[in-house]
Amino acid sequence: MIGWEDVYKVVVAMVPLYVALVLGYGSVRWWKVFTPEQCGAINRFVCYFTLPLFTFEFAAHVDPFKMNYLFIGADAVSKVIIVVVLAFWAKWSGKGSYCWSITSFSLCTLTNSLVVGVPILKAMYGPAAVDLVVQSSVIQAIIWLTLLLLVLELRRTGLGFSSDKDLEGSADSNGSSRPAFWCLMKTVWLKLAMNPNSYACIIGLVWAFISNRWHFEMPSIMEGSILIMSKAGTGTAMFSMGIFMALQEKVIACGTSLAVIGMILRFIAGPAAMAIGSIAVGLRGDVLRVAIIQAALPQSITSFIFAKEYGLHAEVISTAVIFGMLASLPVLIAYYAILEFVP
Amino acid sequence: MIGWEDVYKVVVAMVPLYVALVLGYGSVRWWKVFTPEQCGAINRFVCYFTLPLFTFEFAAHVDPFKMNYLFIGADAVSKVIIVVVLAFWAKWSGKGSYCWSITSFSLCTLTNSLVVGVPILKAMYGPAAVDLVVQSSVIQAIIWLTLLLLVLELRRTGLGFSSDKDLEGSADSNGSSRPAFWCLMKTVWLKLAMNPNSYACIIGLVWAFISNRWHFEMPSIMEGSILIMSKAGTGTAMFSMGIFMALQEKVIACGTSLAVIGMILRFIAGPAAMAIGSIAVGLRGDVLRVAIIQAALPQSITSFIFAKEYGLHAEVISTAVIFGMLASLPVLIAYYAILEFVP
Repeated sequence: MIGWEDVYKVVVAMVPLYVALVLGYGSVRWWKVFTPEQCGAINRFVCYFTLPLFTFEFAAHVDPFKMNYLFIGADAVSKVIIVVVLAFWAKWSGKGSYCWSITSFSLCTLTNSLVVGVPILKAMYGPAAVDLVVQSSVIQAIIWLTLLLLVLELRRTGLGFSSDKDLEGSADSNGSSRPAFWCLMKTVWLKLAMNPNSYACIIGLVWAFISNRWHFEMPSIMEGSILIMSKAGTGTAMFSMGIFMALQEKVIACGTSLAVIGMILRFIAGPAAMAIGSIAVGLRGDVLRVAIIQAALPQSITSFIFAKEYGLHAEVISTAVIFGMLASLPVLIAYYAILEFVP
Repeated sequence: MIGWEDVYKVVVAMVPLYVALVLGYGSVRWWKVFTPEQCGAINRFVCYFTLPLFTFEFAAHVDPFKMNYLFIGADAVSKVIIVVVLAFWAKWSGKGSYCWSITSFSLCTLTNSLVVGVPILKAMYGPAAVDLVVQSSVIQAIIWLTLLLLVLELRRTGLGFSSDKDLEGSADSNGSSRPAFWCLMKTVWLKLAMNPNSYACIIGLVWAFISNRWHFEMPSIMEGSILIMSKAGTGTAMFSMGIFMALQEKVIACGTSLAVIGMILRFIAGPAAMAIGSIAVGLRGDVLRVAIIQAALPQSITSFIFAKEYGLHAEVISTAVIFGMLASLPVLIAYYAILEFVP
């Protein structure tokens, strides 16, 4: 049984995140420290400087030759389950649609693993859990966010094609499909290359491969130069999310019923799929617990940025980010308590 | 003799500060990440959030009952020496003036002890040196910056009186002097109360008194909530200084000869006075070395903020901040090497 002191440890890990969040919120709503244009500066500072170095710092210290491939497999299985369910739903249900499938996938699978996940899972299960969260965040950044971008671009070019057709009456769809595909891939890669967190993650992983392959450590002068900004990552990211909340008209931007569905997908469907995937590949003990809890973290902020950029249900994802962050303390503690009874 | 590995340790401690500085500089000059208005936002973020919590974190962990009073005495003696020399100069030299005495005092004595001093002195002489730097920074924030504000306000009201006299012909100087004094003190205290770093330092010290008097530790939930932002202190402060540099027209804003005089006051006169004070009170060994090196740190940024606010030689202090930061790596290593020969 977990005792009150275990719960308290988790609270101790989470409260600082909320403090930074409230400082960011208050700086705009209560103390008027920043004008709206200035809020953009804090966001840019986080987006271009602290968060990429924060991501790099974690990715560079992964050992790609000692990753827990069973855990990553479980993660992949859970995501495939979700994709299959959503594809069926889009095809066979009357209410199903390609657009809502994308948003639902995002809600079920993409989490704020580094900023929120690392401190919480460290408090719950110690440093070994941090390794797992970092691995899943690297996979998320490299594989799943790329895939999300791809389907979002597909949707946009799909929209583009439809309007072409509307205008021209008919289109030589067969002949133009191959260059269109390369054009699409180029756009996706450009987007990723423009996203500082994606390339921070990829460069970090490349560094991790090289340093672990030839067994050398990062020189302390380089480590220190990265740490000076990356240490600011958690605080500034939460502060910036607080500013983002303060700039929204209301906490629940998308209406209550959509918010409830979003919360169910985020906090129940996602972890449930992860539990199925984990049990399918045979995870047990703390690794199983970490796998399920990291699937119940608040919504990834990058997924919101993409949703906003592509104009796809941004208000639903925004609610999942904000309300998910507020709800995550009790939800995660509940999962933590329940998962004690898992063998 | 200090070897190359000792020098390298210091370089390792300083290079990250320059990296953050260059990122800040580059963000404005090269990559155009921030508009001029947005630069103000980063400055405000540092000034109101990260730096006060950074200062609080250090001040709260001072043990006021175990301060090195000999060291603080040496600091006070050195400052009195400087004040006396400057007062004589202002009174007897043809070139001397009240205004230049204030600026010279600022250049000789006020250092960037926490952001730059702590990592450097830790690399040189270990954690005991950090204790000393923090003590001197607390004294600087509470006593010497207050005193600087007081003389700056005196000068301003002095200017005010002169223009009164010019206008009215004569003033009842005797009758109005007492309320004027209280008015002056009120202004100084208001300025200090409005300066987040001053009150962070004072609140931190109050906490340190209480916690050390009744022997209790800061609860980990409070410690974590402060650390989440204070950890960002060094990086964001140096980044913001880089932005400040980028916004200046030129590195040496005040002309070469004034810049040279400023550098001599900062890097030679200040440490020399500190050496005299230290030897006078009988400091020896590492404490003596720390005392002298911490007096040779780059110029305090707060002293520039005051100089700008009161319109008193801001361009001289700005040069001392910028050029002092750039020059401090070789200067501090030179001091470090020379002081090895001190018994």
